[in-house]
Amino acid sequence: MPDLLDWTDVSDADWNACLARARQHRQAHRSPSAYTDAARGKSLGLVFYNSSLRTRTSMELAAVQLGAHPTVIDVGHGVWGFEWERGVVMDGGKAEHVTEAVGVLARYYDALGVRVFATLTDRLADEQDAHLKTFAAISSVPVINLESAKFHPCQALADAATLTDRFGGNVKGKRLLLTWAPHPKPLPQAVPNSALLMATRLGMDVRLAHPKGAPLGADIVAQAEAYAQQHGASFEIVHDVDAAYDDVDVVYAKAWATPLVYTDYDADETFRQTHANWTVTTDKMARTNDAAFMHCLPVRRGVVVEDAVLDGPCAIHLDQAEYRLHAQKAILEWVWGLRV
Amino acid sequence: MPDLLDWTDVSDADWNACLARARQHRQAHRSPSAYTDAARGKSLGLVFYNSSLRTRTSMELAAVQLGAHPTVIDVGHGVWGFEWERGVVMDGGKAEHVTEAVGVLARYYDALGVRVFATLTDRLADEQDAHLKTFAAISSVPVINLESAKFHPCQALADAATLTDRFGGNVKGKRLLLTWAPHPKPLPQAVPNSALLMATRLGMDVRLAHPKGAPLGADIVAQAEAYAQQHGASFEIVHDVDAAYDDVDVVYAKAWATPLVYTDYDADETFRQTHANWTVTTDKMARTNDAAFMHCLPVRRGVVVEDAVLDGPCAIHLDQAEYRLHAQKAILEWVWGLRV
Amino acid sequence: MPDLLDWTDVSDADWNACLARARQHRQAHRSPSAYTDAARGKSLGLVFYNSSLRTRTSMELAAVQLGAHPTVIDVGHGVWGFEWERGVVMDGGKAEHVTEAVGVLARYYDALGVRVFATLTDRLADEQDAHLKTFAAISSVPVINLESAKFHPCQALADAATLTDRFGGNVKGKRLLLTWAPHPKPLPQAVPNSALLMATRLGMDVRLAHPKGAPLGADIVAQAEAYAQQHGASFEIVHDVDAAYDDVDVVYAKAWATPLVYTDYDADETFRQTHANWTVTTDKMARTNDAAFMHCLPVRRGVVVEDAVLDGPCAIHLDQAEYRLHAQKAILEWVWGLRV
Repeated sequence: MPDLLDWTDVSDADWNACLARARQHRQAHRSPSAYTDAARGKSLGLVFYNSSLRTRTSMELAAVQLGAHPTVIDVGHGVWGFEWERGVVMDGGKAEHVTEAVGVLARYYDALGVRVFATLTDRLADEQDAHLKTFAAISSVPVINLESAKFHPCQALADAATLTDRFGGNVKGKRLLLTWAPHPKPLPQAVPNSALLMATRLGMDVRLAHPKGAPLGADIVAQAEAYAQQHGASFEIVHDVDAAYDDVDVVYAKAWATPLVYTDYDADETFRQTHANWTVTTDKMARTNDAAFMHCLPVRRGVVVEDAVLDGPCAIHLDQAEYRLHAQKAILEWVWGLRV
Repeated sequence: MPDLLDWTDVSDADWNACLARARQHRQAHRSPSAYTDAARGKSLGLVFYNSSLRTRTSMELAAVQLGAHPTVIDVGHGVWGFEWERGVVMDGGKAEHVTEAVGVLARYYDALGVRVFATLTDRLADEQDAHLKTFAAISSVPVINLESAKFHPCQALADAATLTDRFGGNVKGKRLLLTWAPHPKPLPQAVPNSALLMATRLGMDVRLAHPKGAPLGADIVAQAEAYAQQHGASFEIVHDVDAAYDDVDVVYAKAWATPLVYTDYDADETFRQTHANWTVTTDKMARTNDAAFMHCLPVRRGVVVEDAVLDGPCAIHLDQAEYRLHAQKAILEWVWGLRV
Repeated sequence: MPDLLDWTDVSDADWNACLARARQHRQAHRSPSAYTDAARGKSLGLVFYNSSLRTRTSMELAAVQLGAHPTVIDVGHGVWGFEWERGVVMDGGKAEHVTEAVGVLARYYDALGVRVFATLTDRLADEQDAHLKTFAAISSVPVINLESAKFHPCQALADAATLTDRFGGNVKGKRLLLTWAPHPKPLPQAVPNSALLMATRLGMDVRLAHPKGAPLGADIVAQAEAYAQQHGASFEIVHDVDAAYDDVDVVYAKAWATPLVYTDYDADETFRQTHANWTVTTDKMARTNDAAFMHCLPVRRGVVVEDAVLDGPCAIHLDQAEYRLHAQKAILEWVWGLRV
């Protein structure tokens, strides 16, 4: 049975099948057919190293609606913290090694989800998605990435389905702007990475906009270019905060830290403060083709985006969030081989 | 489908139906008929801003015993804290606005419970039950108040059923004393408010006793007077800590803060310390008509009430607590339109 | 219906029946017959005063796989802390007395589990297992010990089943070494107590090894001697850290504090540091009869045991951990009278 660490590991056939299945689940939402016993007897362990509202609740309900049993495990809240390094003499504050923790959970559960964000201090570990890969290497049951240093595949599938519904089933030829946004804190790049790869893989015409000095990883950009080429679609990177909005059909906003964060935390903070003019505003949205506004949530109102945009008719952030439930049902069916 | 923010919003017919149904659920407790599939496929999100033992467990079991799936969400424990104010630039410690948090949860769950206590610092917000009302205004699914600044309707229904059982189905003509009690901390008035309205709505003869300077809200008292008049029952407010107990059939004790708490925290504390003689004692209970002793729990032994009262044969606080389970099954059936 | 505070309270017939049933559950693991509705409608409240990974997840799944509903209650995480002493004036930080907390939970749930570790500060309370016994005395439903000051019966049954499987159903004549190990923190003796009583009750030849000055309780040792005598098996206590390993078939390692911890915390720490040579190593394991290595987890790698032992072919700590699930299903069936 497969892991879902990132969609880049997954064939087009399976990606498209999961996308189609997610859309079926949305059609069934709150109808009797939303609840099946397809996964009766199975259990899902959800390990969180970081906070969550949507992921924990939507993944829990996804499991329940398939007849499976979910457990949310908050590391550090009533559960011992884990040591991740191999070969360490564990005489400090960490009571348990991830080898035993995951080894045991894999004996109990039929799949494990894990959320472990980028460290923003260990660049190599973040670039290699080291914590996620360590976790997956230990587990003898499928592992689902609930947001790692580099990827957020559950969000990506939900976003893909939201966009596909938005444009009546066909997003080809539609233009998506993925724009950097200000934020009081340095944030990882998992969501923009996954959004970029998702949109280019869907064959949308994609514009990535960010201030110079806030690039996404070179490997991510290269993969996005490859997806765009594969679909005969366009992909460009721009730095003009206003012109970026011209004629797009979708604005996807997200804050992320610059690479400065690894070497000079204060310089990254200054960079973010200096580019406060990247907030998504009604003025900027007026340049678009009546674009949908997307955000993965949680969102800082008045910082990432003006209230008027979020509260306006084009905002589809709640649709994205709702689709997490449907997408994750499709993902669970896929990792457990329950595809109907 | 209705919210349950407070019973004052609910018709007599529905209040009485819920009361009757709660009593049926108690009859079925631990029998096979306690467990139904009436709410199969439904889910209940329980959002706690404040601690809870009874409410979280009894509401969870109430949902489960109807076949629904409950999730307990502890804000601040693995879940981001919420910003409640509109129009704020969210550049501080709050990562998510209640608009998005509740908006998303309402997409997932079929009802939401919320516990959000009085601030005891913002008098206007507390008097208007502002947090509860904000939460309910955002939610597109029914909201159940798990104790707000002003009301605790789950406790009220459980108490009403406990009293009705206690007196063989008819509480008319029975006298209930609701008495203020000392406490080391300032506590909100939600429970005494709800207890007072519950008892007067049942048509009991009600005596509210508190030291001068520790009144309940004028709107609450006015509503209690109206209920008493509607039932041809008596309602009085007294300040004699001993005479208050004369000839009553029920003593309901509860600590609450004085209005001083909003303007002079220390003065409220001094007030509470000064009135330490309001502890419920066996001596005071001896003045009653062998009265039942009630408390919503948690209770400070030796401060609110002497051990001998709590451990004696007249104490029915555990019956009240048990009834939370039965009452909340009735409430869930009501908000979901499952009345049998 | 019985409590499970410790197996010493339980007849040989019931102990053996639970052991046999645990082994049946392991055979059924991940097959359709692993999931029954034998406990449909029942609920299990799991109260944790201390951290847990295995116990909370395996007990939750044990309940679910029998059709029952589990709730994990972390005292101090969204739940008020409890006062344990009788006759106290509760004017401090504790909002609720254990009398009410357990009294209420017993009204809701059909059994309660409780984890409450040794204090390591109150010797008398620890020796009497006072917190566990207080909890059990209050509860009107069966109480299952999830690790108390003195015993860890869930671990003991899992270990007994793991050993029985390891030796093809018959452990008689097999030699088990239970060895003290170093640790950066003082740990309670519940696990070594239960492991010692388990192995001697199985009729294994048991060697208990620890530095002079780190004894287990005299009552525990006396009970172990009685079990050994009952089975015509050997039991010895040794202090030679190397010779202890000679010719044994099983090495069970565990760190525990010395009695010094109650009177001189620093002296206990010094004792543990002085005996760092008690780490389980490949050199020591080479003296054994190709022994299985056991540990209850969590384990400090490089302190309690070398990585090479834990990662080697003889380590069966994950089997022990998995057996927690199966053993606890047998325990729940037993306390609920569901023995098939």
